[in-house]
Amino acid sequence: MTTFVKNAAGRRVPSEVNGQSAFAYAGVGMHKPEGRKQAPSVRSASDYPANGDKRVADLETALKKCDLRDGMVISSHHHFRDGDKVAVAALQAAARLGVKDLMWFPSASFPCHTPVIDLMEKGVVHHIEGSMNGALGDYCSTGKMRGLGVLRSHGGRWQAIQDGEVKIDVAIIAAPTADPFGNADGSHGPSACGSLGFALADSIYAEHVIVVTDNLVPFPCIPWQIQGNNVDCVVELPSVGDPAKIVSGTTQITKSPDRLLIAENIARFVRDTGIMRDGFSFQAGAGGIALGFVQFLKTMMREAGVKARFVRGGSTRYLVELLHEGLTDYILDGQTFDLDGVKNLANDPRHVSSSPFTSYNYHGKGNFASMVDVTVLGATEVDLDFNANVNTHSDGRLLHGIGGWQNCLFAGCTVLAVPSFRDRIPVIVDRVTTLTGPGELIDVVATERGIAINPRRKDLLDAVKGSSLPIRTLEEIKNDVEKMCGVPQKPVLTDEPVAVIKWVDGTVIDTVWKVADQPAKSPPR
Amino acid sequence: MTTFVKNAAGRRVPSEVNGQSAFAYAGVGMHKPEGRKQAPSVRSASDYPANGDKRVADLETALKKCDLRDGMVISSHHHFRDGDKVAVAALQAAARLGVKDLMWFPSASFPCHTPVIDLMEKGVVHHIEGSMNGALGDYCSTGKMRGLGVLRSHGGRWQAIQDGEVKIDVAIIAAPTADPFGNADGSHGPSACGSLGFALADSIYAEHVIVVTDNLVPFPCIPWQIQGNNVDCVVELPSVGDPAKIVSGTTQITKSPDRLLIAENIARFVRDTGIMRDGFSFQAGAGGIALGFVQFLKTMMREAGVKARFVRGGSTRYLVELLHEGLTDYILDGQTFDLDGVKNLANDPRHVSSSPFTSYNYHGKGNFASMVDVTVLGATEVDLDFNANVNTHSDGRLLHGIGGWQNCLFAGCTVLAVPSFRDRIPVIVDRVTTLTGPGELIDVVATERGIAINPRRKDLLDAVKGSSLPIRTLEEIKNDVEKMCGVPQKPVLTDEPVAVIKWVDGTVIDTVWKVADQPAKSPPR
Repeated sequence: MTTFVKNAAGRRVPSEVNGQSAFAYAGVGMHKPEGRKQAPSVRSASDYPANGDKRVADLETALKKCDLRDGMVISSHHHFRDGDKVAVAALQAAARLGVKDLMWFPSASFPCHTPVIDLMEKGVVHHIEGSMNGALGDYCSTGKMRGLGVLRSHGGRWQAIQDGEVKIDVAIIAAPTADPFGNADGSHGPSACGSLGFALADSIYAEHVIVVTDNLVPFPCIPWQIQGNNVDCVVELPSVGDPAKIVSGTTQITKSPDRLLIAENIARFVRDTGIMRDGFSFQAGAGGIALGFVQFLKTMMREAGVKARFVRGGSTRYLVELLHEGLTDYILDGQTFDLDGVKNLANDPRHVSSSPFTSYNYHGKGNFASMVDVTVLGATEVDLDFNANVNTHSDGRLLHGIGGWQNCLFAGCTVLAVPSFRDRIPVIVDRVTTLTGPGELIDVVATERGIAINPRRKDLLDAVKGSSLPIRTLEEIKNDVEKMCGVPQKPVLTDEPVAVIKWVDGTVIDTVWKVADQPAKSPPR
Repeated sequence: MTTFVKNAAGRRVPSEVNGQSAFAYAGVGMHKPEGRKQAPSVRSASDYPANGDKRVADLETALKKCDLRDGMVISSHHHFRDGDKVAVAALQAAARLGVKDLMWFPSASFPCHTPVIDLMEKGVVHHIEGSMNGALGDYCSTGKMRGLGVLRSHGGRWQAIQDGEVKIDVAIIAAPTADPFGNADGSHGPSACGSLGFALADSIYAEHVIVVTDNLVPFPCIPWQIQGNNVDCVVELPSVGDPAKIVSGTTQITKSPDRLLIAENIARFVRDTGIMRDGFSFQAGAGGIALGFVQFLKTMMREAGVKARFVRGGSTRYLVELLHEGLTDYILDGQTFDLDGVKNLANDPRHVSSSPFTSYNYHGKGNFASMVDVTVLGATEVDLDFNANVNTHSDGRLLHGIGGWQNCLFAGCTVLAVPSFRDRIPVIVDRVTTLTGPGELIDVVATERGIAINPRRKDLLDAVKGSSLPIRTLEEIKNDVEKMCGVPQKPVLTDEPVAVIKWVDGTVIDTVWKVADQPAKSPPR
């Protein structure tokens, strides 16, 4: 019987997750880890081919060689996004071997991974720990998955692997280019996706590592983002991914006038508060508002003659243009969102591939996230204490992963760029359905109805004094919207947990509850 | 009381080294390691400055912050070679803190480190594990050091750290460029030395890491050969190294006609045996014969229209020229021996920094060394079974480290390029004074009096049939030389061990014995 405790954020969380005891969230920076990092077995080169050729015939042979057995943990990465052809192929190969009860540990899952539902139904996969979107999220939300879903940020996934919370037995690394030794690169080849940073922890800490490629080159594969010295087998497939879906070819600046207004206001805020100064840094994702923000800020930087020291990707052509225009010294890139990003990463030494270790891991000797001056993020809900939700919708359904969102909250100034309502449902609420990030780390909420600054940030409130920015309180914006949209009904949730949200330090910050039987907004599958 | 056992090579070795039980050498590939890799403590970003600034005032402050105490292990790297100013400064800072009985664990030591003798005399340093040249070698050879010297190859040092045989408490990493977060780069700055690969294991596995630099740049230091996420403190010094001595400015092709003949014969051998073919690879160090070999081979490659896939450095201008002429796709570089190498590594993406992990670590899932088609190395002595010594001279004194020598023996074809005698002392002997590498891995001994092929390599013997190469047996060459030089006296050694030679798998392959009191060839200090 699962017992529950109330954590430091007042959320009810299980004290055990998938048979393993779990720490309750204790507040930002309050949980002090103990123990040593995870360590895979020592190997001997005498057990590997001297000529470095680790190729085997197919995925089944590779999985057998890696001693895959019932109940093991099999991991994969999401750099191919919705174009991935490898994770499902590997799990289906495991099914053909008759293996049961695997835990699938992707760095994220996409609609292309929907066939895993079938493998869960058949008992091949026991449960998923990793972000679940679309049909997989719904499968979990409606209580059909056997284990609890565990959602971690990109940094939290590194932390969990590094700390030995999740022990990967077999890592599957899909590689746009690789050599027979297992060195692998994401930035070249017909399935080029840019960085392979999300697979790096898997390659270092897993007991066994399988590299899968459709572009084998003679040793050495340069650059070796993944090092063959950690790899057991190499498998060739005709195609590892659908190039059209690997990159989000549609990465576009928003065309909505409201959202463009938000983007422009954030850029003005960054300029007018003095955050935009020579040598500053920022991070903005691939969403329409974030890209708009980059374009507005770029113009302001050019006008003011200001150059950034670095910008953080997910890279897109907008960041690449910034680099080529001399408006930043570097792009530090965790994943690559469009073809311009992929191409530039492959050729420009100022466009640097980063990993969750360098960027986000909270259980290292610091990380890059806290050194970013300003970061622009999204959210599904925000409450009056600036607490935010990115995982569930207002109906309680689990529909999004965390990505790097939690990790980015440690920036010097964290801005949530959100419309004040979506589909007539207000975004600012009394209490977020799911708590993904604590309000003390969220400094600004920018909507089309004004910019609200967290009262904790007196420095920012001072900095905007006298400016023409539309500074308001969250309450004012909330009241405006509720006058228009009304106060929405609370979602009907059961007392049965279906997933937990981990904080960056591995503690449980919130629980996702099974939604009650009710007319679903979208069909479960 | 130390007990001794006879190992698989017939050498008497201690079963305990510096208080730790040791495995005796069991033959190539015979020792199977058990257990898991070393794992440092899990840390929390909350204990490090959010702005990423880890600078402290000086080395003493840094050592205190890293909790340096009596009996700990303090490590350093040798990329600055005889120009290093940091290792001695750090040990002297430890002395000022009153710390005693440290084990100093350099990746190699040089004459500039002679002041460590004084620190050993004073009890600050207990003993050294790492190659000891010149005065330090003599101090050890004559039994003055308290513990046993432990000599490891570059790969063996990684293996020992990775396997937890040596647990580094505080790693000192001298960096030609670094940022306040601790990211560090060897290829730029006034003290540029190229790669920092020898310090990589230290940065990953040590409990505490201190980066010392004379060229601080704003975050991010690109490339980050050493990742700040593993670094505790950053210390600025006016100068970390003497640029004139960091690179061997005098790296020159031999001018001796005998040695040029050896170089040319090896190049002909590589060509005529068919090893030189499109896509092949080779490694040659910075010695005069090896550089000569590169020049001869280059001409032959150009004549035959052959291109290498990769060449392994220690890089020099000769390898850089090969790359720029299009005669190789890549240089895979473990250390950089001259300014042309340093400059090229900094700018040319085909010139790739490698580490002992990728290149040499025997306790990984393979390494690059066994994928090199031919490697040209030196030796101080070779016996008739092709066993070789690189550590001691014929007088028994410990005068050289192993470097990557043992690791390189795993190449497809290992050639020892040696004059048949030095200072009228024959190089080919009945029994090597110290066994550094087993004859089964040594394929060819090339002297100015002919080329001897190991009888195990019937394929090579077949390949040279009908060629004009001066193929002879080792016996023939040995007899020739003894007719000229006589048979030298055996060195007078005691029964007291002063150091052990580790094999690539951490087993003890031989013991270095204290030299008996006798007129020294060179004064002890």
